[in-house]
Amino acid sequence: MAKRARILIDCKDAKGLVYHISKIFYERNLNIDSNREFVDKENSKFFMRTVVTGEFESEELHRALASVLPAEAQIRVIVPKPKKIVIMVTKESHCLGDILIRWADGEFEADIEAVISNRYNLRDLTRRFDIPFFYVSSDDCSREEHEHQVREILGELNFDFIVLAKYMRILSSDFVRQFPERIVNIHHSFLPAFIGANPYRQAYERGVKIIGATAHFVTTDLDEGPIISQDVVSVTHRHGWKDMQRAGGDVEKIVLARALSLVLNDRVFVNGNKTIVF
Amino acid sequence: MAKRARILIDCKDAKGLVYHISKIFYERNLNIDSNREFVDKENSKFFMRTVVTGEFESEELHRALASVLPAEAQIRVIVPKPKKIVIMVTKESHCLGDILIRWADGEFEADIEAVISNRYNLRDLTRRFDIPFFYVSSDDCSREEHEHQVREILGELNFDFIVLAKYMRILSSDFVRQFPERIVNIHHSFLPAFIGANPYRQAYERGVKIIGATAHFVTTDLDEGPIISQDVVSVTHRHGWKDMQRAGGDVEKIVLARALSLVLNDRVFVNGNKTIVF
Amino acid sequence: MAKRARILIDCKDAKGLVYHISKIFYERNLNIDSNREFVDKENSKFFMRTVVTGEFESEELHRALASVLPAEAQIRVIVPKPKKIVIMVTKESHCLGDILIRWADGEFEADIEAVISNRYNLRDLTRRFDIPFFYVSSDDCSREEHEHQVREILGELNFDFIVLAKYMRILSSDFVRQFPERIVNIHHSFLPAFIGANPYRQAYERGVKIIGATAHFVTTDLDEGPIISQDVVSVTHRHGWKDMQRAGGDVEKIVLARALSLVLNDRVFVNGNKTIVF
Amino acid sequence: MAKRARILIDCKDAKGLVYHISKIFYERNLNIDSNREFVDKENSKFFMRTVVTGEFESEELHRALASVLPAEAQIRVIVPKPKKIVIMVTKESHCLGDILIRWADGEFEADIEAVISNRYNLRDLTRRFDIPFFYVSSDDCSREEHEHQVREILGELNFDFIVLAKYMRILSSDFVRQFPERIVNIHHSFLPAFIGANPYRQAYERGVKIIGATAHFVTTDLDEGPIISQDVVSVTHRHGWKDMQRAGGDVEKIVLARALSLVLNDRVFVNGNKTIVF
Repeated sequence: MAKRARILIDCKDAKGLVYHISKIFYERNLNIDSNREFVDKENSKFFMRTVVTGEFESEELHRALASVLPAEAQIRVIVPKPKKIVIMVTKESHCLGDILIRWADGEFEADIEAVISNRYNLRDLTRRFDIPFFYVSSDDCSREEHEHQVREILGELNFDFIVLAKYMRILSSDFVRQFPERIVNIHHSFLPAFIGANPYRQAYERGVKIIGATAHFVTTDLDEGPIISQDVVSVTHRHGWKDMQRAGGDVEKIVLARALSLVLNDRVFVNGNKTIVF
Repeated sequence: MAKRARILIDCKDAKGLVYHISKIFYERNLNIDSNREFVDKENSKFFMRTVVTGEFESEELHRALASVLPAEAQIRVIVPKPKKIVIMVTKESHCLGDILIRWADGEFEADIEAVISNRYNLRDLTRRFDIPFFYVSSDDCSREEHEHQVREILGELNFDFIVLAKYMRILSSDFVRQFPERIVNIHHSFLPAFIGANPYRQAYERGVKIIGATAHFVTTDLDEGPIISQDVVSVTHRHGWKDMQRAGGDVEKIVLARALSLVLNDRVFVNGNKTIVF
Repeated sequence: MAKRARILIDCKDAKGLVYHISKIFYERNLNIDSNREFVDKENSKFFMRTVVTGEFESEELHRALASVLPAEAQIRVIVPKPKKIVIMVTKESHCLGDILIRWADGEFEADIEAVISNRYNLRDLTRRFDIPFFYVSSDDCSREEHEHQVREILGELNFDFIVLAKYMRILSSDFVRQFPERIVNIHHSFLPAFIGANPYRQAYERGVKIIGATAHFVTTDLDEGPIISQDVVSVTHRHGWKDMQRAGGDVEKIVLARALSLVLNDRVFVNGNKTIVF
Repeated sequence: MAKRARILIDCKDAKGLVYHISKIFYERNLNIDSNREFVDKENSKFFMRTVVTGEFESEELHRALASVLPAEAQIRVIVPKPKKIVIMVTKESHCLGDILIRWADGEFEADIEAVISNRYNLRDLTRRFDIPFFYVSSDDCSREEHEHQVREILGELNFDFIVLAKYMRILSSDFVRQFPERIVNIHHSFLPAFIGANPYRQAYERGVKIIGATAHFVTTDLDEGPIISQDVVSVTHRHGWKDMQRAGGDVEKIVLARALSLVLNDRVFVNGNKTIVF
């Protein structure tokens, strides 16, 4: 029976890659629905995302591709199904709320397994959508202790991605290293401007005329992970920093949703400290 | 000696197209520098733009591609060289001026053969850049007579594209039909809003909060040709229609330059009344 | 006790208006927190929105202002308090959901009295937020009958504004005339482009490179009411019309929320078929 | 005979300012064409820009305003006339070219007195517009020596503003201090991101999805002066840093022209390290 797969390939660039790969598809009578390639010439790397339809057996297809590609090639044959996500929040509702509304409408190819928070503020909102809410206090305990508790909960769950939807604590390197390319964060500034705490206050103090938001994978370098999506909105001298925060909130939620959609649709490659977005 | 070509293919969609095409490149030891494809599923059409480098003979490559593609396939093997353009204007300087500055800076892969106008206003500006300026009066003569004179001048020139850089007269269907997919126009509105005369006045009367500009290929249907590029800018109740015109001028020149660049770099396919932009 | 008022004045332009008005404030020892004026010179009309703080008695202040302004002047002295809104929807959740999340977060200076729909789709979402949901079937009945039932429900409610948050039926002139400048609609196109049904399909067919959304007051002319807010998003040839619809949805909800905020904060004057937005 | 003035007032906030000021206008029978105010509450400062028409004598009007305003108030009564500007450049033509085209079209309320450069690249372009071009070599000399020569030329000229239209050298604090709030610079990044050298390279390395440009007044803190205008453009992984530079160039010239227009129209107040833009 005909099915669909997303093929993601990431390897050293070489002559004939498209030919060798498309030959595999051709020999199996697969149809190419869409196809995107990119060659990073500086680093001589090749990236390809192809959607094929037809009759295939995933492992066989993977083996066939591996047989014509360099040994180090990363090959993924993904038959689309909902990914599982866990959302971490603190107290602002706009990003979580936006994700919930979209999810309830079937916009995301995802199941939301749980919401974890160090505050109670968003418990009611979460429960309105019948999603488990875990409260893990961060008061009166060290970061290690707090994260230990969070990881115990995560250990009980089955998930592909963690989404930091305005989670206002910094995760330790230890934590981050457990989930490489699996944590998506929304930062409330147009990175790399205004790294760190209270970017809207910083933006206000600097007198900028545009503010923005950045969705990125979390790495062990704070606010330095590969950027997935960014957007901006104009402000004027009439915006106090709270007005900037409100205006910025609209950008944050749209940018986070866009990045999450891209990630859930397997459209994002990490390339060093950057992303390729197909 | 290694050279570079842009291969543009446009044909009915079919299984194996990417394989057959990439095989041709592979057998000739050509390197794929970049590659973009699109399948219009509604109309079952396939579009591909590939940049290859290596040693090849254009006609041989064309024949080889033709041998593996459907009979009706449009195949172009383009070894990049400056295209020749003629610019038609009336009296506003911002679009012409922007093109001249960019061209003088080597930004366009193009030679400007001439500027033709039905007014004298832009003669001095054109001559500052040592480009021939032809004045063809549109006063006291019919559209046919005027266009006849324009076409006599065009007949003496060698050119690939005509750029209407705020040419404020409507070209006859007869004229347009002579140059299919070869006339690029900038329309001073966000088409299809405000078709026809004085779109800024129309936009002002309607009280819109955003105005825009549209670059498109000219067809025999006024303001209905395939859109290449569009952009917008915000306005408020404080903008009178002349303020809108001024703000819109900035968008017009950027959009026209962007469209022209895309066309000169062979990045635009016409697909019915739409474009594919790679 | 010190309080705050928004003073909205709208009258024929004349010399000395700012002087006469500010004198009233000065004599009462009121502080001007913010002040915005606009003169529509074409129509010789004056608009002013001032926020004052201090001790005042609304009716006395109104009378004082009336005594120095032309007889036809519209004067509003508004002591801010939550306005009451009724939301009408059909089946798409993104605009309603966005409003609910913002409202639950206290972002709107408003109480949501009810959601009315001709479909059941959004009942659960509405109830998650403990808001009354009224289903009024539009099947097997005339527009008059349907609207009659809607108006019976409205008659039981106390409200300032009706928000059409993707209400997909056309309201009769009779209905609209009951609520002048009190119905805010989100239209899913960059008006005046793509008036009428299925604008995303229209936009797709036309091959535009940018799509948009428009929030406006509803008047008896379909899609022709005064525009409050607009915004846009870029699309490419890769967007089918359903992709455009999804991308457009993000713009719709942001534009509607922005317009609603402006209206709830008494920042919008209607000036003929246009708005003044302070 | 009726004339027009722009009145700019900047003082400590106090009750009754609008009343006292508008009384002055009223008593002189002046008409208020437009009026904008802003109160910076954090710093308790009041800013006002009013355009009045009627019969007045500038010094008398100034004295009258001073008599009702706090002693420290900055009051400017400006009867519009072209301001004089000097443009400093290095070798990129897009900003200078854009200014020249606009200027030749009468878009700026300004006379261009001269172009000064440390390179010959833009001499021909400048001369095409019949504007004096001064070459001041920066080779084989210290910054002090170079600036000394530039200041000798400036000393011979009569000018209001210096525009750095891609002048690629850092001006000394000594130089900058001579021209407070009189030097406008275009910085090729979305400040405060990518301060310093080669911002496009920095942006490319960081993998941002949006790049921008910033026009600001130059102060003795490099890239830290009050921001007048900013704008951005989207980029993707397909943009190398030279592509970013080209895309950014379009933003730079538009942002610089917009800032210059605002400054020439006396629409910009400096408020500490920020601007108020009316």
